Parts: sequence; structure tokens; C-alpha cells
Amino acid sequence: MNKIYNPERSEWAEILKRPTQTVDDIEATVTDIFKEVKEKGDTAVAKYTSIFDNVTLESTAVTDTEIEEAQELISTELKEAIQLAKGNIERFHTAQKTERVAVSTTEGVDCWQEKRPIQKVGLYIPGGTAPLFSTILMLATPANIAGCKEIVLCTPPDKDGKVNPAILYTAKLSGVTKIFKVGGIQAIAAMTFGTETVPQVYKIFGPGNQFVTVAKQLATKHGVAIDMPAGPSELLVVADDAAQASFVASDLLSQAEHGVDSQVILVSTSKDLIDEVEKEVEVQMSTLSRKRIAEKAIDNSKLIYVKDDETALALIDEYGPEHFIVCTSNDDYYVDNIGNAGSVFIGNYTPESAGDYASGTNHTLPTNGYAKQYSGVNLDSFMKSMTFQKISETGIKNIGRAIELMAEAEGLDAHKNAVTLRLNALK
Amino acid sequence: MNKIYNPERSEWAEILKRPTQTVDDIEATVTDIFKEVKEKGDTAVAKYTSIFDNVTLESTAVTDTEIEEAQELISTELKEAIQLAKGNIERFHTAQKTERVAVSTTEGVDCWQEKRPIQKVGLYIPGGTAPLFSTILMLATPANIAGCKEIVLCTPPDKDGKVNPAILYTAKLSGVTKIFKVGGIQAIAAMTFGTETVPQVYKIFGPGNQFVTVAKQLATKHGVAIDMPAGPSELLVVADDAAQASFVASDLLSQAEHGVDSQVILVSTSKDLIDEVEKEVEVQMSTLSRKRIAEKAIDNSKLIYVKDDETALALIDEYGPEHFIVCTSNDDYYVDNIGNAGSVFIGNYTPESAGDYASGTNHTLPTNGYAKQYSGVNLDSFMKSMTFQKISETGIKNIGRAIELMAEAEGLDAHKNAVTLRLNALK
Repeated sequence: MNKIYNPERSEWAEILKRPTQTVDDIEATVTDIFKEVKEKGDTAVAKYTSIFDNVTLESTAVTDTEIEEAQELISTELKEAIQLAKGNIERFHTAQKTERVAVSTTEGVDCWQEKRPIQKVGLYIPGGTAPLFSTILMLATPANIAGCKEIVLCTPPDKDGKVNPAILYTAKLSGVTKIFKVGGIQAIAAMTFGTETVPQVYKIFGPGNQFVTVAKQLATKHGVAIDMPAGPSELLVVADDAAQASFVASDLLSQAEHGVDSQVILVSTSKDLIDEVEKEVEVQMSTLSRKRIAEKAIDNSKLIYVKDDETALALIDEYGPEHFIVCTSNDDYYVDNIGNAGSVFIGNYTPESAGDYASGTNHTLPTNGYAKQYSGVNLDSFMKSMTFQKISETGIKNIGRAIELMAEAEGLDAHKNAVTLRLNALK
Repeated sequence: MNKIYNPERSEWAEILKRPTQTVDDIEATVTDIFKEVKEKGDTAVAKYTSIFDNVTLESTAVTDTEIEEAQELISTELKEAIQLAKGNIERFHTAQKTERVAVSTTEGVDCWQEKRPIQKVGLYIPGGTAPLFSTILMLATPANIAGCKEIVLCTPPDKDGKVNPAILYTAKLSGVTKIFKVGGIQAIAAMTFGTETVPQVYKIFGPGNQFVTVAKQLATKHGVAIDMPAGPSELLVVADDAAQASFVASDLLSQAEHGVDSQVILVSTSKDLIDEVEKEVEVQMSTLSRKRIAEKAIDNSKLIYVKDDETALALIDEYGPEHFIVCTSNDDYYVDNIGNAGSVFIGNYTPESAGDYASGTNHTLPTNGYAKQYSGVNLDSFMKSMTFQKISETGIKNIGRAIELMAEAEGLDAHKNAVTLRLNALK
């Protein structure tokens, strides 16, 4: 771990620098596969499933029988845990519903804003060692509350052509309408263009490796929206002597086990806490199954000592962490004033794991500094806001002259004329 | 104008096809200029201002004196018109403020969502013949309500190194914090990387030509967000015998005068209305100053007859118009059921011009079918939502076991351990 004491403001940018990824070399591959899926549909999808997933499937659509079988394979205990998490996620995202906003901006000029669901959304869930069924809860639950009609899920099959039962169980539970055993670039391409079996969607959500990330970027060039730009996951903890060092260490490690490129930062006004956390990390790391991964991330982690809370806050705001744990004697100061963070975890008993799974907040969050301008996934991510206006005869009399003058000043005659005709009709 | 009667559903996609733009050839230019601005800052900006705007400036920052001079150059009448519009825009966007959403998802688990402003935003306003001061109202007004600290505006200078006074007046009125005489690709690059004088921003808003559009796309690869993907402006009117043909014609023309690539569509269940509108368009067009532009757009426009409102709605929803005028004997049906549209204008006295300038709704809207998944600019466009959670000892006891089970099932030991440590401490 790298300890840094009282860094100069001019050094912050360098200290907080995130590793950059180059994607140019895989763009060509992604572009080729997109072209092929667009032209050949399911045939191309089958070809790349065979190449990348080493399996040939009769059909990519998951059947009801497969879903029923999956239900049998999961322990009652895990099912109940998933249901508890879903309940909390549902409560938090349902509370985010907004009423129609209606205003008479001038007498006779009624304006309103309403949110309506994005009709078709696609969720991508990676395969591999860790079946991320929790991400299905985070995406399908709000999609359902929003009222999306079609909620398509793509996830790669294993070598036997199967999908992890926890994924199928959670997908069914949270209202996914169609599940396909399609992974990687070909999945993103299929949802972008539509194939004979996979529907085209308007917005694609979900995590993935570098190939999926580049594929999602390319999808945006073909008229599809995506949840947000991707980057390695990250955690910044601000803690002082009010924090339990072993808890802080466990949180840093839970971030570190995600990947060797995970970002792990502790900012503290206490040198003692920094030393204690460092020791605790060593102790706890030895027992982890993903020790190798965690070790590398911890090697690159930073323990930063600063002299006061003001300096800490300014530094943290410049970083804009995805996950931000606050455990200090001055929590309110950080919570009230932080300008850039994805999700904030407050106090000794609020580990990041809670938000990852079950507190109710969404775990799809802006990383890589994107907390400065992007929201984490929330109910609105599955809707778009539309505006409406209805102007009466009185209304157009009230604002018509202003429109004429402004249109004229912008040199747009026909815009002006559309008002003049109406005003004349009312004379 | 192209009249189409009762098109088959299978033909809709072809009929509603928008012109595609190719941007590959200008990507190289944009990439080069970005590189140069990143490396050389203001020097590069000055170079391209000289090349593209034919002017060499001592300083790009607009001074207070210039703003004061601009105030003198505008008529009181126009100032009052701009103020009226600003008032309406302010009322509508202020009403969009949302309270913090707070929920105890489980006893002891408090979650809340708050929106906080994007601290630094950049607005781009094109120069040229039409000074789009109305767009400044649409962008700076909500940015101010949101609480953005830095609101930077870039707009190109004319050959004398000046900026249109209506632009300066409106920028000052609506709370822009810094104005720079920088246009085109170099403006977007300057706001993306920051230069010695132009601040780096987190999100860029505003219209522009193809070069600006590509530059905004490239900005997103450098960590900057943009308002939305661009495309030619478009209007779809649904009208029947309840509509005044001359009004409908004037609305179609106000769209047509934007550019030769503007999309203009009338859908109607009345063949009579279609014929009348066609005649009216010819009459009104002859008097327009931008007749040449309007004529070309009108040549490509479509008048589509369909047999009933249900068919009309389905066709319109598939198109997803940026601007959608509803003027029928069945308005509520369309208003209640339209799923995809940017902004909706209802009735004979609600021309699109009203929303373009002064009703209060925002005129920065998703075009090119993006109404299916993107919102128009609104208050939230200048904010990001953050989530918070605070879990008590009781709370972690209530949800801790579920987290442990789910983390274990996903193979993430350290995530589980962060909870186990806390549960053990409470035993």
C-alpha cells in the first residue's frame, strides 16, 4: 500500500490518476462482429457463440422448463436472501417515482412534464466465475417499476450450453421478459440490430469486460443508448479514529477483490488509523479465495493522510469516487458537502457490500470520475421525460408578440409567421 | 410534397426513414484539432479561430464592457420579449426540482437519493446568420436553477471579432459565468481539456454543425458528457378536420426553414385536410426569406393519410418525433398514449414556435428517433442523482445474513467478510 502524507494540492491530480485503458486494438474486432450480426442475424450470433463460448446451441432462447429447473437448484436460503434484497431495491426505486409536473407559465399557457417508460431495454449479464445475479436485481427491478414493456436479458452460456441457475431464478423473479443465451460482443450487437430471435432494444444496461464495453460504445453509434460509460470499480474511504480499522480494511479488500485494476483509496486525518488499517489488510487478505487479485489491487492502493476535513473533502471531490464510505467523527460535514460521488455509505455498520446487494440503492454507479456528471442507475434511467404544452387563445395573445420578436431577431420568418397567422385570426 | 395513402405497416420503416449522415471523413480533422488544443491550449485555439473564423483576437474572453455595450444595442422591445421567455422557462424548470427521496427499506436501513448540480457545464452557441440567443435561455436558465457553479459559454466571433449583442445580452441575463469568443471544433476541444483561459467542463450542451456534432462525440471519449446525440430537426403533425389548414401549413414551414435536411411530416385521417394543407404551404412559402431552404425540405416532406387514429398513433410512435403537434378531434387519445416524442404541442393555438421560444418548455430535444430513449434537456440534465445509505446495528443484523449468502453465491469472499466482521462484533 502506498502511504502519502499531506500531498500538495498540485500533486492531487497525479496521485488520484486512474489507470487508462486503450481500446483501439479491439475496436476492429467489435466493428466486424457488429457488421456480421447486422447482416446475418442469428447465424452470426451462433458462429461467435461457438468461437467464444465453445458451444453450439439449438436455440438461444431460455425455455420455461429451464427456468423451472433452475428454481429447484437454488437453496431456499439463497432464494430468501434474493427476495429480501429485491424487496429493498423495489421499495427504494418505487419511491423515486415522480408525479407529472404541471405549470401555467403565463395565463393560458399550460406546460407539463411527464416521464414515460423506455419501451424496450436490454440487460447484459456477464458469465464466467462469478454469476452476477445481483446485477439483474439492480436493473430488472427498476425497469419493471418504470413500466418497460420488453426487458431482454442476454448472458453467455457455459460449455454445456447452460446458464447459472441463480441468474435464471433472479431474472424470472424480477420480471425479465425474455432471456437469451448469448454473450459478449455478439449479444450487444444482437440487441442493437435485432435478429430473428433477439429483439432490438432502445437502451442497453449492464457490466462486462473490455469487449462488451467497446461493443456498448459502438452501439451508441447505431442509435442505442447505454446506461453509462464503464471503468474499473473503485472505493474511497474517509475515516478517522471514529472508525473501526478492521471494518475499514474489510471494505478496502471487498473492493480490491473485484479486479487487479480496482481502485482502493483511504483518506484519513489520523496517522494511527492508517497504520492500523494497513496491518488489518495484511491479516484479512491471507484468508481470501481471491487473494491473488486483491493483492495486486492493494499494491496499487493509496493511504492518504491529510491535515483536516476540509482538505480531505476537496481532495475527494476532485476524485469523484464511485463508492464513498464516510466513517468519521464529522460524518455530516462530508455527507452534506460532497459534490461528486456515486453512492455514499455512512458509519461503521454500512459496508459497501450492503449497497452491492441489499440495502436498496443501486449498485450500477458512475466510476472513473464520471460521478462528476453522471447519475448512477435509478428509476429515471428506464424512462424519458417528455414535455407537453397547450396554449389557449388568451395564451397565444399573451406570449405571441414575444415569440414574433425573438423569431424575427433570429432571422426565422416562418417561425414568426406561425404565430402571426394565429394572432390575426383572433383579431 | 409526397402524399402517401394508407401505407402498409411493412412500409412504415421505409417511409419514416431519416436521412443518414456520414461523419467518417470529418473525424480525422476533429481528432487532429483535439490533439493540438490538448497540447497547445490557447495557441491552438487562436490558430483555428484564425483559420475558420478569419479573425485574430487579442483575447477570447468577453469583457464586461462588451456586455454593457451589447445591452445598448438591443431594442427595449426585444429585451422585454427575452425577459418574458426567460420568466416562463424559469417557472417551468423551477417546478422540476425534486425533493430528496428517503426510505427506510428495512428497519435500520435508511436510503436516500439526492440530486446535486454538475459543478461545471459548457454551452456551445453557433454563430452564423441566425444568432441563437433563445438556446442560451434554454440552457443557462436551468443550469442556474440547478446550481451549477461554472457556466461557460463558447460562441464564434464574427470577422470583426465581435459576438452578436443578443447573444451577449441573453448570456448575461441568464447567468452565464464566462463567455468566450471561440467557435467550432476548437471550442468543444477547449471545454473538454481546458486551456489557459477556457475552463474544463464536465458536460457540454448545445447545437452545432456537423463538425461540432462530431467534436461533441469525441469529447465523450475524453470523459466529458454531452446533452444528447444530434440530428436534423423534425416535426410531425397529426391533424384532422378539427385543425386549421393554414396553421398546420405554417407549422410545417417553420420546421422546413431550419435546414434542407429538416424532417416534415403530416399524418392525417382526413384527405381533405391533406389537400388543403398542401395548397396553403405553396401560398405561404412564397413569402419566406428562407424560401430556398424551406422548399428543399418541403420537397422531401410527407403527407400520410391513414384510416384511423389507432393507426396514426402506432405509426407516430414508431417514428418518435422530436416535435409533435396534435390538432384533432381526439387530442386526448394522442396525448395520453404517445410513448415516444420529445415535446408535444396541443391544439390550434399551440405552434411549435411557442416551445421554441417562450412557452417555458425546453427546445433542446431528442431528434432522429432518440425520443425513444432520451429526454429533452430539463432541470435534471444539469444535475446528477447520488444515493446515500446509513445502516444501524439493527439494520446490519436485519440484512447482513442475506448479503453474506448472496456474496458467497457470487464467489466474492471479501464482500461477505465485510459483513461477517460486523455481525461478529455485534454478537
